Amino acid sequence: MKKLINSPDDVITDALKGIEASDGNVRVDHENRVIYRSAPKEAGKVAIISGGGSGHEPMHGGFVGYGMLDAACAGQMFTSPTPDQMLAATTTVDSGAGVLHIVKNYTGDVMNFEMAAELAADAGIEVTTVLVEDDVAVQDSLYTAGRRGVGTTVLLEKIVGAAAEEGMTLAEVTAVAQRVSDNGRSMGMALTSCTVPAAGRPTFDLPEGEMEIGIGIHGEPGRHREPIADAKSIAKQLVDPILADLDFTGAPVIAMVNGMGGTPLIELYLMYGEVIELLGAAGVTVERNLVGNYITSLDMAGCSLTLLRADDEMIRLWDSPVQTAGLRWGR
Amino acid sequence: MKKLINSPDDVITDALKGIEASDGNVRVDHENRVIYRSAPKEAGKVAIISGGGSGHEPMHGGFVGYGMLDAACAGQMFTSPTPDQMLAATTTVDSGAGVLHIVKNYTGDVMNFEMAAELAADAGIEVTTVLVEDDVAVQDSLYTAGRRGVGTTVLLEKIVGAAAEEGMTLAEVTAVAQRVSDNGRSMGMALTSCTVPAAGRPTFDLPEGEMEIGIGIHGEPGRHREPIADAKSIAKQLVDPILADLDFTGAPVIAMVNGMGGTPLIELYLMYGEVIELLGAAGVTVERNLVGNYITSLDMAGCSLTLLRADDEMIRLWDSPVQTAGLRWGR
Repeated sequence: MKKLINSPDDVITDALKGIEASDGNVRVDHENRVIYRSAPKEAGKVAIISGGGSGHEPMHGGFVGYGMLDAACAGQMFTSPTPDQMLAATTTVDSGAGVLHIVKNYTGDVMNFEMAAELAADAGIEVTTVLVEDDVAVQDSLYTAGRRGVGTTVLLEKIVGAAAEEGMTLAEVTAVAQRVSDNGRSMGMALTSCTVPAAGRPTFDLPEGEMEIGIGIHGEPGRHREPIADAKSIAKQLVDPILADLDFTGAPVIAMVNGMGGTPLIELYLMYGEVIELLGAAGVTVERNLVGNYITSLDMAGCSLTLLRADDEMIRLWDSPVQTAGLRWGR
Repeated sequence: MKKLINSPDDVITDALKGIEASDGNVRVDHENRVIYRSAPKEAGKVAIISGGGSGHEPMHGGFVGYGMLDAACAGQMFTSPTPDQMLAATTTVDSGAGVLHIVKNYTGDVMNFEMAAELAADAGIEVTTVLVEDDVAVQDSLYTAGRRGVGTTVLLEKIVGAAAEEGMTLAEVTAVAQRVSDNGRSMGMALTSCTVPAAGRPTFDLPEGEMEIGIGIHGEPGRHREPIADAKSIAKQLVDPILADLDFTGAPVIAMVNGMGGTPLIELYLMYGEVIELLGAAGVTVERNLVGNYITSLDMAGCSLTLLRADDEMIRLWDSPVQTAGLRWGR
């Protein structure tokens, strides 16, 4: 295992120190492992929190700041945060207008966010939840029933962050969130496994010359393995299942080509070029895009594609200012 | 070799298509492989170009846009662009106020930019040049005499881009550029080699359990190899040679922890935490920072540290607006 770490036990603690030292948008509650905005949102506006296992950086901590999240809970590596962390975040960020929980569909995350929402309700805080379940690769998977929650989470956190910043009510913010969740689809692939520091060896074996199509962000099995193909064929294997699942024509689309952590930017740009050609041929109009590392899987090499069938309101919210370390503002 | 490409011969052509499709800040002259701003700078202002071998993305093409570069020439993989490319870029972006060439100190780049500057002068265009030679690792190296030009290039392109945007003259912009070059120092390390697509195998062997300290961005040999150490020790091996080379106390410092392309963000944040602790203990005050992939080496795992001994003017220019895909604006 080749990693820039002190010890497998200290990775998250140490990384949170670096995030706090480098990112002027955030402060970190190290005891609870919650990342908060350094300048809290104005009182009276809806607050938004998310969280999940660590190892997917910049998600979610890098999305805390003006125009996106109010707080993010950092779980252990690839492991849901606890209800206590979520409750601490919820009570801290609520200013009376209620709190939206953004939850990726993994069994542990769903269970813990549910418990936190109940505890928050007991404390008099209004909480709503949106579930992201956008991965078209497989129906059930290693860590969840139903579809896994992946790349749409990034787009959702940007869009609903802007909605809350505008002063929408909790019901309105939640409605936007649900619309984004309903209209986002993703598909990923891996060239290599990732290595969880505590395990010290690759999560799975993927021999030289082979790739896995439909991989999950924790290395969960995808659809199948096959010999490594060219970028054009790989792009097709990401685009086709997404387009087969939802009609993306006739609406402005936001597209994200996301790196899994170990793939350099030049390859992601190259993949975007292939994806956009296929989408154009299919009559899909991409109005906004992201290319880069946004929802990663430690050091895994590979990429994922997310498409969001947007509408005018989503595009307007996408274009609203945001100040976070993890998501650049712009087209 | 596991890469998201169509064929080793087409990597740069294909990647440039993706860059143009995704990045609203730029348009690409595919024949000359020059990346230009989609909205050119106002006439009468100094123009700035850079360029170098491909494989270091987002540098330089990702730094083309408002507040940074006017154009970037993309060479073959790890190979200098040609004088023709540089001349095309220079003549296109000049609007009468002259053009600054930002050149990293590699023999081919220096020679070709010199020739392009002469050809431009023959055509009546005033050109000045700043050389970046900031790598404290080794005096001479595989591709150059003197120090290699690495991370300071990123900070320099941001700062002088703002100076040109403000309307400074060519002499003034060049003076700022030289001051940045004089006051920047870098040091890198690798956990793995990179693999150049056309070669199809790692540039060098770096066995499991070993790392190389002082690595260049093309895999040029560094200072020495040793068993992989913890992040704290690695940070010290980057910080110490830089502080031994220049006094960074008593001035505002801009620090960059840069990923080599294959290292995930969580490890870069962790490294930043270690670096900032060492710098604090040494009495160095970091006022601004970057953590992420800015000057990469294909899929190499590892990182580099760059420190710039700044002054109030550089900090002011650092804080000026910028709109490029590769460099986020902010603290």
